[in-house]
Amino acid sequence: MRALRRQGRISRSEISNITGWSKAKASQEIRSLIEKGYLVEIGEGVSQGGRKPRLLRINNQLGYIAGIDIGATSLDVALADVTGSILQRCSEPTDVKLPPQSVFGRCSELLLDLIRTQGGTPDQLLGIGVGVPGPVDFARGVLVAPPLMPEWENFPIRDFFKKTFHSAFVVVDNDVNIMALGEQRAGDGAGIDHFIFVKIGTGIGAGIISNGRIHRGSDGSAGDIGHICVDKEGPLCACGNKGCLEAMAAGPAIASKALEAARNGSSATLREMRESNGGTLRPEDVNAACREGDQAALDIIRDSGQMIGDVLASLVNFFNPSHIFVGGGITNFGNHLLVAIRRAVLHRSLPLATTHLSIKFSRVGSNVGVMGAISLALDYLFAIEDNLHLMV
Amino acid sequence: MRALRRQGRISRSEISNITGWSKAKASQEIRSLIEKGYLVEIGEGVSQGGRKPRLLRINNQLGYIAGIDIGATSLDVALADVTGSILQRCSEPTDVKLPPQSVFGRCSELLLDLIRTQGGTPDQLLGIGVGVPGPVDFARGVLVAPPLMPEWENFPIRDFFKKTFHSAFVVVDNDVNIMALGEQRAGDGAGIDHFIFVKIGTGIGAGIISNGRIHRGSDGSAGDIGHICVDKEGPLCACGNKGCLEAMAAGPAIASKALEAARNGSSATLREMRESNGGTLRPEDVNAACREGDQAALDIIRDSGQMIGDVLASLVNFFNPSHIFVGGGITNFGNHLLVAIRRAVLHRSLPLATTHLSIKFSRVGSNVGVMGAISLALDYLFAIEDNLHLMV
Repeated sequence: MRALRRQGRISRSEISNITGWSKAKASQEIRSLIEKGYLVEIGEGVSQGGRKPRLLRINNQLGYIAGIDIGATSLDVALADVTGSILQRCSEPTDVKLPPQSVFGRCSELLLDLIRTQGGTPDQLLGIGVGVPGPVDFARGVLVAPPLMPEWENFPIRDFFKKTFHSAFVVVDNDVNIMALGEQRAGDGAGIDHFIFVKIGTGIGAGIISNGRIHRGSDGSAGDIGHICVDKEGPLCACGNKGCLEAMAAGPAIASKALEAARNGSSATLREMRESNGGTLRPEDVNAACREGDQAALDIIRDSGQMIGDVLASLVNFFNPSHIFVGGGITNFGNHLLVAIRRAVLHRSLPLATTHLSIKFSRVGSNVGVMGAISLALDYLFAIEDNLHLMV
Repeated sequence: MRALRRQGRISRSEISNITGWSKAKASQEIRSLIEKGYLVEIGEGVSQGGRKPRLLRINNQLGYIAGIDIGATSLDVALADVTGSILQRCSEPTDVKLPPQSVFGRCSELLLDLIRTQGGTPDQLLGIGVGVPGPVDFARGVLVAPPLMPEWENFPIRDFFKKTFHSAFVVVDNDVNIMALGEQRAGDGAGIDHFIFVKIGTGIGAGIISNGRIHRGSDGSAGDIGHICVDKEGPLCACGNKGCLEAMAAGPAIASKALEAARNGSSATLREMRESNGGTLRPEDVNAACREGDQAALDIIRDSGQMIGDVLASLVNFFNPSHIFVGGGITNFGNHLLVAIRRAVLHRSLPLATTHLSIKFSRVGSNVGVMGAISLALDYLFAIEDNLHLMV
């Protein structure tokens, strides 16, 4: 199944080679998988001298897989077939300050709509992958002490979806982990053994791939780099500590530094923007000011990049990834941010760790979360089926 | 083979269960392994109702495995059988400032002695695991830009040993990686999915276990935490940057702070020690002074612990290990250092990441390096044998 997922199609003799099964055993297993609806034959391949090989592929009519990506301010729901091809997708604003029933309820509605539009029924949904913006106890599938939405702690996400989608299993993971999986599945992370996906938005977090596998850590909180200390005397963070990276360099910090620059007169552009915005500034405004050549806005963005880069420099020494992919809302800021991050990392990491290091924006775009959630669900689908004897 | 290495002995039916082989296939494979000398039968086990099961174990007469652990100032050589039991071991001072031919040559001599004492011949040596104190290109088995011994760069360690030990393969790894493997093989790290082994001595480095496997990173430099920046205005480090953890908190930094305290009169104990030492102080002296109740010495040790703990706090947020094992020369310093490390980590890491986190000294002791080198060689021995179809 692993080879099938990678290659799309495979011959019977390739299956024998990969599994080490005898011809008879392979025939029997393949027959059983076809009967169960996992595989279909798709005609004949090119002869290598003897009989033309009969090719097999995963049966994309087996059922649906859903990917759900819940961010602090938006949610994405996508429906895919079991080969991971997205059939349809929708996206809308949300607010994680709402009760979980309301946000997950809306996800269920959207998912039902998608299935209906595709001409299917809820029972055809085999699995749901869900990404949520907070620390997840992966084994139990619940949020643990999520700073953004304390009310969601321990909410039984699996049971909630199972009420509507009886045939589906539900896998829940942190939003940045699913982004890393999405980068691995659909982006430049494919085939890369060691990389870090850094999300910069309202918060800052990382998804970690070690030896080709997601590294969740012993409590599922790995990658929580937003609360690494940058300045012991820095501003108070929501977590209770001072000078956390997130409190100093993420979207809200950028906006609040810009407000300060607007107030103290160091930027006329930001002051004007603030006035026309009714007294507030968003991170996007700082970006816009920067594009207009505003020095104060540029400095704010560079400072953020430098702080993020300083933290990543430590992590590069520790983890020695070959790639760092940067994604999330703030990455629309373009090159100033990325250049500052790169400069700080190269300046502070050891040469051996940076010689082959590539730091770039993720090119998967806004699909990366749902792609990862679908990939996670597929890993689970093909691994939990005992008869396949496989960990995918 | 994996189950055999773990359990020591196993029955034929267990082998069928684990591999999924039919009885006939299992019989045939086992016969072939016995003929090749990998397995031996060791009589009958306890009946579970039917026939008494015939037990198998790895043939410990198959040959020898060597573990070599080269530190900055000492080298350890051990000879084991293929079950990983150490038969004999020796240890002596060395100096990595010497040319590599001289240090590895000495290792060869010691190894020949050990084999002779055991009544064996050099050709019975199947594999050698080697740990060296510097960054290793694991695939090529050579050191890359080692700060302590620039002359050793690219020295062909494998070829060097193969000249004397024709039948042996040679696996080379960083000294801290082999310590982490030793902790996993023989210490409290057994069965733990995610842990960090921190070595504190002349330098500071870490070995990383993720999902039960060593994480070497994309260039083999993972775990190089000694050059993480602690203070941008700190003292110059050998690597060229300022304020690296190693330059501020490792053995030499402790000794030099103590010298300063002896000179400026803030510690009478250290001043006396310095005089009786002929004008110098070693890290051990600071420890001794601390035991005598000297406040300045205690402060120096606590400061080191705090700086190391601050760095580990970031890594705990990022990596979320369940255990941190501390080893290396400085760990003889006992609880003051450990308490300071723990306090800093608990203070700066997120609650979710520290609730189940254990930070303690490695209990494997000075054997940990050679144990790990032997374990690495055994992993390799049982994985490269194609006929076993296994990655161990």
